[in-house]
Amino acid sequence: MTELHGVIPYLPTPLTPAGEVDRGALARVCEHLIGRGVHGLCPLGSTGEFAYLGRDAKRAVVEAVVEAAAGRVPVIAGAAATATADAVAQAREWEALGADGILAVMEAYFPVPEDGVVAYFTAIADATGLPVTLYTNPSFQRSDLGLGALERLSRHPRIAYLKDASTDTGRLLTILNRLGDRLGVFAASSHVTAAVMLIGGRGWMAGPSCLVPEASVRLYDFCRAGRWDAAMALQRDLWSMNELFARYQLAAAIKAGLRLQGLDCGDPAPPQTPVPPEGLAEIEAALGRLGAL
Amino acid sequence: MTELHGVIPYLPTPLTPAGEVDRGALARVCEHLIGRGVHGLCPLGSTGEFAYLGRDAKRAVVEAVVEAAAGRVPVIAGAAATATADAVAQAREWEALGADGILAVMEAYFPVPEDGVVAYFTAIADATGLPVTLYTNPSFQRSDLGLGALERLSRHPRIAYLKDASTDTGRLLTILNRLGDRLGVFAASSHVTAAVMLIGGRGWMAGPSCLVPEASVRLYDFCRAGRWDAAMALQRDLWSMNELFARYQLAAAIKAGLRLQGLDCGDPAPPQTPVPPEGLAEIEAALGRLGAL
Amino acid sequence: MTELHGVIPYLPTPLTPAGEVDRGALARVCEHLIGRGVHGLCPLGSTGEFAYLGRDAKRAVVEAVVEAAAGRVPVIAGAAATATADAVAQAREWEALGADGILAVMEAYFPVPEDGVVAYFTAIADATGLPVTLYTNPSFQRSDLGLGALERLSRHPRIAYLKDASTDTGRLLTILNRLGDRLGVFAASSHVTAAVMLIGGRGWMAGPSCLVPEASVRLYDFCRAGRWDAAMALQRDLWSMNELFARYQLAAAIKAGLRLQGLDCGDPAPPQTPVPPEGLAEIEAALGRLGAL
Amino acid sequence: MTELHGVIPYLPTPLTPAGEVDRGALARVCEHLIGRGVHGLCPLGSTGEFAYLGRDAKRAVVEAVVEAAAGRVPVIAGAAATATADAVAQAREWEALGADGILAVMEAYFPVPEDGVVAYFTAIADATGLPVTLYTNPSFQRSDLGLGALERLSRHPRIAYLKDASTDTGRLLTILNRLGDRLGVFAASSHVTAAVMLIGGRGWMAGPSCLVPEASVRLYDFCRAGRWDAAMALQRDLWSMNELFARYQLAAAIKAGLRLQGLDCGDPAPPQTPVPPEGLAEIEAALGRLGAL
Repeated sequence: MTELHGVIPYLPTPLTPAGEVDRGALARVCEHLIGRGVHGLCPLGSTGEFAYLGRDAKRAVVEAVVEAAAGRVPVIAGAAATATADAVAQAREWEALGADGILAVMEAYFPVPEDGVVAYFTAIADATGLPVTLYTNPSFQRSDLGLGALERLSRHPRIAYLKDASTDTGRLLTILNRLGDRLGVFAASSHVTAAVMLIGGRGWMAGPSCLVPEASVRLYDFCRAGRWDAAMALQRDLWSMNELFARYQLAAAIKAGLRLQGLDCGDPAPPQTPVPPEGLAEIEAALGRLGAL
Repeated sequence: MTELHGVIPYLPTPLTPAGEVDRGALARVCEHLIGRGVHGLCPLGSTGEFAYLGRDAKRAVVEAVVEAAAGRVPVIAGAAATATADAVAQAREWEALGADGILAVMEAYFPVPEDGVVAYFTAIADATGLPVTLYTNPSFQRSDLGLGALERLSRHPRIAYLKDASTDTGRLLTILNRLGDRLGVFAASSHVTAAVMLIGGRGWMAGPSCLVPEASVRLYDFCRAGRWDAAMALQRDLWSMNELFARYQLAAAIKAGLRLQGLDCGDPAPPQTPVPPEGLAEIEAALGRLGAL
Repeated sequence: MTELHGVIPYLPTPLTPAGEVDRGALARVCEHLIGRGVHGLCPLGSTGEFAYLGRDAKRAVVEAVVEAAAGRVPVIAGAAATATADAVAQAREWEALGADGILAVMEAYFPVPEDGVVAYFTAIADATGLPVTLYTNPSFQRSDLGLGALERLSRHPRIAYLKDASTDTGRLLTILNRLGDRLGVFAASSHVTAAVMLIGGRGWMAGPSCLVPEASVRLYDFCRAGRWDAAMALQRDLWSMNELFARYQLAAAIKAGLRLQGLDCGDPAPPQTPVPPEGLAEIEAALGRLGAL
Repeated sequence: MTELHGVIPYLPTPLTPAGEVDRGALARVCEHLIGRGVHGLCPLGSTGEFAYLGRDAKRAVVEAVVEAAAGRVPVIAGAAATATADAVAQAREWEALGADGILAVMEAYFPVPEDGVVAYFTAIADATGLPVTLYTNPSFQRSDLGLGALERLSRHPRIAYLKDASTDTGRLLTILNRLGDRLGVFAASSHVTAAVMLIGGRGWMAGPSCLVPEASVRLYDFCRAGRWDAAMALQRDLWSMNELFARYQLAAAIKAGLRLQGLDCGDPAPPQTPVPPEGLAEIEAALGRLGAL
């Protein structure tokens, strides 16, 4: 398998007013992003509202994205569950549907001890022949994907990447220092991506890249070329998008922005609420400043 | 409808080694509890591992409990979801299967503003003709079921009860003072139930009652009779069960205890882990002291 | 020494506009409370703004309260510090000034391991011949006064009481079950005091009692007499005061209420801010409903 | 005044076994650090145990550091308190003693609303003619030094710098984007300092620099010269020191390391506990790897 790197947007899940997956809209978003140079596509992440979709809806999402990608960029599909058996079944199905990698997410209800966490992710990695990206988000999950668990998981031949959605850049440096030869590290939109590239990251998996794909790819290229002054100038501008994502809900904010760009994906699944009017104005202003309208 | 009151145990979900719902074991647990005088049965609460079960498994649980209860005690079935549409569909199905009430639970992933919370629970209450019990558990959920939301929800004709799994007894008194004529309040195992009865509670919905049903009913009767000294003497003994539930995971601890009582319900769904050996010894000792082995 | 019990108000620290301790006002508050039957006085608790006072101010407070009490009720003076040496020096000085007991508080900055916590409180208890009340407030302190530390501290011959300002009544029952023969438990205003009395408490140390001393003493007497129905009727009325204390800052709210009662104690020490106008109206209304204006 | 920049170590407060400030040891540490090229000295930060020292001890610290610096590097002295009047008095005294700047810290006990926070820091800045560095540490303080408060405070003519001890590098970029022309930003040891330099920081104020002053200055010089590859190679090595500070208490860890370097500063003030033996071995190993023994 080719190695993952670069800008891999978390895709939204377009929904019709009746709550069905809107495959046409999803295909249009994929085509739009591939045309602007992104290095991969990630359906069924947090931004993709995995926590609000049933199995049939998830299947429709993966099918639509694999079809739209058509082998041009890798598709990393989210397998997210509370129960091990559910996550394993998803991973197998995404592989059968043609996904190129699995984003493994643990949605704990009760706290799970480290052995349980390691068993969960190991079961997902054992279930398919695909490379696995571990996803950790301390704000929304309860699984303790601590250093001990990461150290054990990094020895699995198919656990190859980590996507970290904390805001703690120092934690990433600790991981890179200890496990950097076995785990490739991706940032999330909560991190300053240029800073994560500086300390050794491979790129980022993030929702905001859906709204500013060209600028995101340019930022990545500056970082890879060691052009840090140019990277920081661009990063400062792009950071306003990340701030909006921290202020509004991920799925709501990205759907609002895409609608402004002519790529209507509907509203987030209830009881999530759409971005309120003052938020729409802020998102429109930010996209305008970035030349993304 | 008759009013809910008394001891309403949260039922475990017995699972076979293959991960299937063990209907026979569930029926035996129900029969056992009804025979010891409990005032209702509550499948698909936290203790019932709702967060780890797919829709088919949940359906099997409700069917088995309704059948076992056979109209002798009310069955309050849990409708728990992140998405409104999913919770509404569950509630409708549980009504069709013969449930007598709905326990409404919100499993938020992203934080939801108060309007979204009210909309979620209102949609569940609108979906059926059954009385609804609101469930709030600040440790495991992210929905903010604050006083403002409760005040609005308490005006719905079918939202009749609240089950609170915080440890804050003062919060219950605040709710009783303001909404006590519209909401009946039930305690959880995190509360001292005799104290909740003193301040005006109607009973408790809790996992530990599965293991000590007779003593729980006796405690309830003492409280109703105003025999507070006798109630407290018994409460002090029973409290050791609640402490064990705080130390080990709910589902794991109750399944361990039932196995010791000859009512094997299997292990909790992975990646949850069974109670470790030292915990089994503690649970056995506690049950022994209470004469429940 | 006589055993502590009953209603022991946390006293405010009256301050002049220049920031000096207003001894005259403090003496008037003490006289007012003793005249209404309280069972003790507690200067330099949270309500007394210990965290905002220098050593000279603290000394002035203890002197004024001991003088005002004139042996009629016991004075339990707060020794609160981050450094052990500071707390020990305070305790010795309060004993020399005539205090009847020490309220021992740990104001941690860095987290302290259990051994350090036990050493801190033991040093205070070793420093004088007075009985010590341990104070724990998880909202405002960082010391982990867990069960293990309490178990060890309860064996000290002069550590005799615990005042708990969490909201977790079950925690108090656990402590009473295990350590109740060695530690007398007092509630704080965050607890439903009638419920704490039911499970075995000795009384309460709380700020709101300053504003409603007579009703507080009546509530205590009902509880002691086992007149639980009368106790609960009164408790429901009094609870409104506790709710106000949870909404506004302790010191600000009690000073606002005393001013309304003609016992002006000035404003809380900056940067604390006085209760805003809408809060004053709420406090006035609550006192009015309780016949305390 | 000259502008602050570079490596400004947080100094420990050496204590004798009797708990007195050891001025001789403090002077030796200052001389050692100045000789290795640090750009300033900061007594009475968290590392300096301000929370455990009385006023006399604090005065002794500032006097000793000003004398030892002898004008060679600026001395930024900590003014930390809960009460505004206390902080103001400290700032005035440190100015009179010859400090070149004030590090302003708010040690809240009760939460303080934004207006109170702004009033507190403004009072400190109004009290002297010295430039003020705001210090924010969400782990140990309760003051909400949010963006709104920072925006207001940054307009004060003498509030010139911010030292941030969160781990959220993105927060620093947000501050630099909005207030970077009015506030100079310093990192703490919780941040990856090279990353903070990349996004526009002026340097760092941190405890670990006491133990590795030469390497810290070299890292700073690499960053200033835009030699990011060299900077990151060195940063990766130095990061192990920061990890130790996160694992052990700040004051305890730095005193342990200085003792190993022949600069004995005694133990941290009780009830803080010294670094345990296994920690000493880790610190010795880390210093050895860095050539700092």
